[in-house]
Amino acid sequence: MSHTDPSGAGPVPIDVPEAARWLAGRVLRTPVLRAPAIDRLAGARVLLKAENLQAGGSYKMRGGLYAVSRLAAAGHGGVVAQSTGNHAVAVALAARRFELAATVVLPVDAAATKVARARAAGARVVLAGTTVEERLAVARRVRDETGHPIVDAYDHPDVIAGQGSASLELIEEAERAGTPLDALVVPVGGGGGAAGACLAAAGRPIEVYGVEPHGCDSLARSLAAGRPVPVTPAPTIADGLRPTCVGELPFAILRTRLRGVVRVDDDEIAEAFRLLLLELKMLAEPSGAAGLAGALRLAAAGALGNDGARRRTVGVVLTGGNVEADLVARLAAAARLKEEVAVA
Amino acid sequence: MSHTDPSGAGPVPIDVPEAARWLAGRVLRTPVLRAPAIDRLAGARVLLKAENLQAGGSYKMRGGLYAVSRLAAAGHGGVVAQSTGNHAVAVALAARRFELAATVVLPVDAAATKVARARAAGARVVLAGTTVEERLAVARRVRDETGHPIVDAYDHPDVIAGQGSASLELIEEAERAGTPLDALVVPVGGGGGAAGACLAAAGRPIEVYGVEPHGCDSLARSLAAGRPVPVTPAPTIADGLRPTCVGELPFAILRTRLRGVVRVDDDEIAEAFRLLLLELKMLAEPSGAAGLAGALRLAAAGALGNDGARRRTVGVVLTGGNVEADLVARLAAAARLKEEVAVA
Repeated sequence: MSHTDPSGAGPVPIDVPEAARWLAGRVLRTPVLRAPAIDRLAGARVLLKAENLQAGGSYKMRGGLYAVSRLAAAGHGGVVAQSTGNHAVAVALAARRFELAATVVLPVDAAATKVARARAAGARVVLAGTTVEERLAVARRVRDETGHPIVDAYDHPDVIAGQGSASLELIEEAERAGTPLDALVVPVGGGGGAAGACLAAAGRPIEVYGVEPHGCDSLARSLAAGRPVPVTPAPTIADGLRPTCVGELPFAILRTRLRGVVRVDDDEIAEAFRLLLLELKMLAEPSGAAGLAGALRLAAAGALGNDGARRRTVGVVLTGGNVEADLVARLAAAARLKEEVAVA
Repeated sequence: MSHTDPSGAGPVPIDVPEAARWLAGRVLRTPVLRAPAIDRLAGARVLLKAENLQAGGSYKMRGGLYAVSRLAAAGHGGVVAQSTGNHAVAVALAARRFELAATVVLPVDAAATKVARARAAGARVVLAGTTVEERLAVARRVRDETGHPIVDAYDHPDVIAGQGSASLELIEEAERAGTPLDALVVPVGGGGGAAGACLAAAGRPIEVYGVEPHGCDSLARSLAAGRPVPVTPAPTIADGLRPTCVGELPFAILRTRLRGVVRVDDDEIAEAFRLLLLELKMLAEPSGAAGLAGALRLAAAGALGNDGARRRTVGVVLTGGNVEADLVARLAAAARLKEEVAVA
């Protein structure tokens, strides 16, 4: 499968099955889980791909490792990455595995645990500004100084292919279980994971949906406009879903392949977080829980097609589980209040 | 394998591999997981068997389902069980699967969610007293009135065999991965799971350890005395590990096969809970986290044998994940304070 390179240089091959084959045995094959209470709420069989258990705590490890491996094979001595968290940690861990130098650019207000994780992986950590533009400027300067290429968090074919391998594993496991997916729901930040999901589902009758927090809906606006449209991201507990703009390469894939985008608010994300924690026994980060929030909203709207005797099967990728203890305490305390209301 | 029946009627066969074969496909084959941070703390490879993901939220489903299936096959029309939670829910769910009547006896102060779960499974719920003796008296009366047998939570050969199947899966998966267990650590309430673990490990050079909360150490006292010794259980957040006395049948197995018992306090259990939540991304109930707490204490004491070049492999059964939201909030908030201290 190939796509037009946004640079205009020509088609870029993005081969999700090839990435999945390469990653097999190199990343954790995460389990696919279900909870009866979640099935009941969705009125569908909900298969949850637990990438919160992935090495590094998120599915970003897949794209990071695949992309870095190919740069190592091409003879590069180091890599540069910028992100607010999971992608930077993934690239740092991947670089260590291939004995490459890594520079990761994080915001000055980055969570201390993320800075610590990147440093523990042996990366040089540069703290720069608070916006993606500020971090990108620094990353480009480091690239120019060192000659080490930037591994973009989503606008990169190998990253898209790697992230897509999580969706492909979920699709194939559902088929093996005799319950092939009717729909696949993934959260959208820069769109790399959603684009990978679309490519993973290609050739199968699976409707792929993206999920964005309200006010962080660059993809929804871009699809309406027919071109990438930046937004000023609104505050949300799903901090991993706040890029300014969907990536050009993901957008080129998503505009023709995505069935739709659903927007969710923080209350819905918090409720999905609570369900995952108390019913599935899984800690997902809010960005990861957003996928389930979107699936529940689609189910409530009848978009998952509860149209007859056959029970539909919906896949959701729980993209990550890196969350600070104080947010867990806050969300669990809110859940307690809800339980008390429900019992009273 | 057979053991002397405490009733004196003769040897009782307890066949863990047979239970495991029967349960395969009938319960979830839960994943075996690791977290680098936990390995580092233990100075060993720690393989965690995630029975918190099991149907019903705990490994009690294994023993309950296996025991109820055999009672159904023997022609019984119903079953009776008493417990503070997981075992009663497991028996209720198992009875529904085999279309048997179920009566479960819970304490008057039982968690509302556990009462709701047992009722949702179609069981008749009787609330009786606050002690195991009060519940047992009611369970015996129901048995005498209905003719339905009691499925004891641990003093029952099929329950022991079923619980042991979780340990056997862990042992076999570690062997397949090329890292066979050197030690296996399980929390102890009435001793059924620990006895099953010992039988699962039989014939292999695996040291099996039990873990009890301080003041709930009937097994440790019983091993010292050479006979079952009851205790007045002290308060602990591990509410599933507070039976008055280790079961007679488990004790008969444990006294010759268990390597040792380690006692842990609530702070250690809370720390293990935090590690499982934030590093493994798993919600375990405190009783389930106690197993990891015990493994970390054994590691700190050098009992896991960090005696040279070879890295040891330790298996831990995370027995369950049913925990109330307010306790999660409380434990996560305590973790936040620790993080702040660590960063400062």
